[in-house]
Amino acid sequence: MECNVPTDIVFSFSGLAMRGGRAGPHGDGWGLALYDGRLARVFLEPAPAANSPLARFVREHPIKTLLAIAHVRRKTRGAIGLANTHPFVRELWGRHFVFAHNGTVKQAKALRLGRFTPIGDTDSEHAFCALLGALAHEFRACPRPAELEAAIAHHAGRIGKTGTFNMLLGDGNALYARCATKLHHVIRKAPFHAATLCDEELCVDFSTVTTPRDRVAIVATAPLTRDEAWTSGEPGSMWVFRAGRLARTLPA
Amino acid sequence: MECNVPTDIVFSFSGLAMRGGRAGPHGDGWGLALYDGRLARVFLEPAPAANSPLARFVREHPIKTLLAIAHVRRKTRGAIGLANTHPFVRELWGRHFVFAHNGTVKQAKALRLGRFTPIGDTDSEHAFCALLGALAHEFRACPRPAELEAAIAHHAGRIGKTGTFNMLLGDGNALYARCATKLHHVIRKAPFHAATLCDEELCVDFSTVTTPRDRVAIVATAPLTRDEAWTSGEPGSMWVFRAGRLARTLPA
Repeated sequence: MECNVPTDIVFSFSGLAMRGGRAGPHGDGWGLALYDGRLARVFLEPAPAANSPLARFVREHPIKTLLAIAHVRRKTRGAIGLANTHPFVRELWGRHFVFAHNGTVKQAKALRLGRFTPIGDTDSEHAFCALLGALAHEFRACPRPAELEAAIAHHAGRIGKTGTFNMLLGDGNALYARCATKLHHVIRKAPFHAATLCDEELCVDFSTVTTPRDRVAIVATAPLTRDEAWTSGEPGSMWVFRAGRLARTLPA
Repeated sequence: MECNVPTDIVFSFSGLAMRGGRAGPHGDGWGLALYDGRLARVFLEPAPAANSPLARFVREHPIKTLLAIAHVRRKTRGAIGLANTHPFVRELWGRHFVFAHNGTVKQAKALRLGRFTPIGDTDSEHAFCALLGALAHEFRACPRPAELEAAIAHHAGRIGKTGTFNMLLGDGNALYARCATKLHHVIRKAPFHAATLCDEELCVDFSTVTTPRDRVAIVATAPLTRDEAWTSGEPGSMWVFRAGRLARTLPA
């Protein structure tokens, strides 16, 4: 979720959490990162989100944010455990970068690492460390947005060559969403309507909780609601969202 | 808290949380990092711990760990906010380093940074980044324990020259506790007895929740219990705890 006004992620997280062990097979852990400026607060659990007390706490005590990345895991590589639970976080240039991945990067361990080292043993974290290490190597300080977008697209495309690299990357300023096989987004803006989750009988009328200037972009592997018009991503492309707008689409 | 068997920190955290806004003036934020192997899970809030729903959740859903670092903040430098809330965390050599500080390092911003950059604007995080950057510069991979201890003591002593640098540093293997002015520890081991918190009418009989081989080291600025024999630190020295033992004391 990426927005222009602080928004709570309860509605979308409720839908995603259902896929973590109840409506879907992604019961091997869940995580949620919520930005507060340059810092991301992260909640992680190596257990299904659907019946997690911590996930329930997060839903019952909503935290407003401009940028959040959530993930429910169905393990392919790497054991179940906290160190292998997405999203992954590192500090670069005085800000947190947050990363979540869907798919498998088969040759990930062959990717050259720079200053960042995986803590767990997933292909996903290795790919993230390689991507971020390449950015750190290329830019001494945070570059201008267009330069950073181009570099992320370049390295995501390079890493994605060896597998399925659907990924979300946040830096507190923007959300970068790379589509390898499957990715969708919807932008909620005025006039707001009601929306109903695909995975749970939960409906919210956004017109009652928003102002006319609010813009909220939601990106997910599969659409989270059944009554909104989701746009599907083009394999080999990357969306950049900023202030609740699709700012740019790049080949990646 | 540093132990030889997974232990929950509820008792000690309850005492510390009281100092976060109720029994003490440290109401400007709290944080708790709990290691799981090389990874630390962190809970942070820029509000008093004493009446925080998240702090209550952590007490009511105890997580067992071998190493935990908690902090309640009374701000000296840096505004109230998540980015300025201890403990601070960075990854180095594929493991999390967790840091908490009590005191003020007046010339902190003059300390040379390496690869780590502060996200917030406290002297504490700057000092942590400088310390960790120096370690990263000195060792390409995690060195042997004795080398690492000596290097941490050296850099903590160097940074501590320009202010009050009581600090706790964890790496998932050991707890490094540097005393500038005030630091205490107690080691709980068999035969276990009951202990009563200084700040709350809470008493635990550890003999009912432990086995004879358990060892738990607790380090705090001021003793947390009123009926245990706490050892006070020597200014200019650093303790290293490993597996619930005081492994070493170094000049620092």
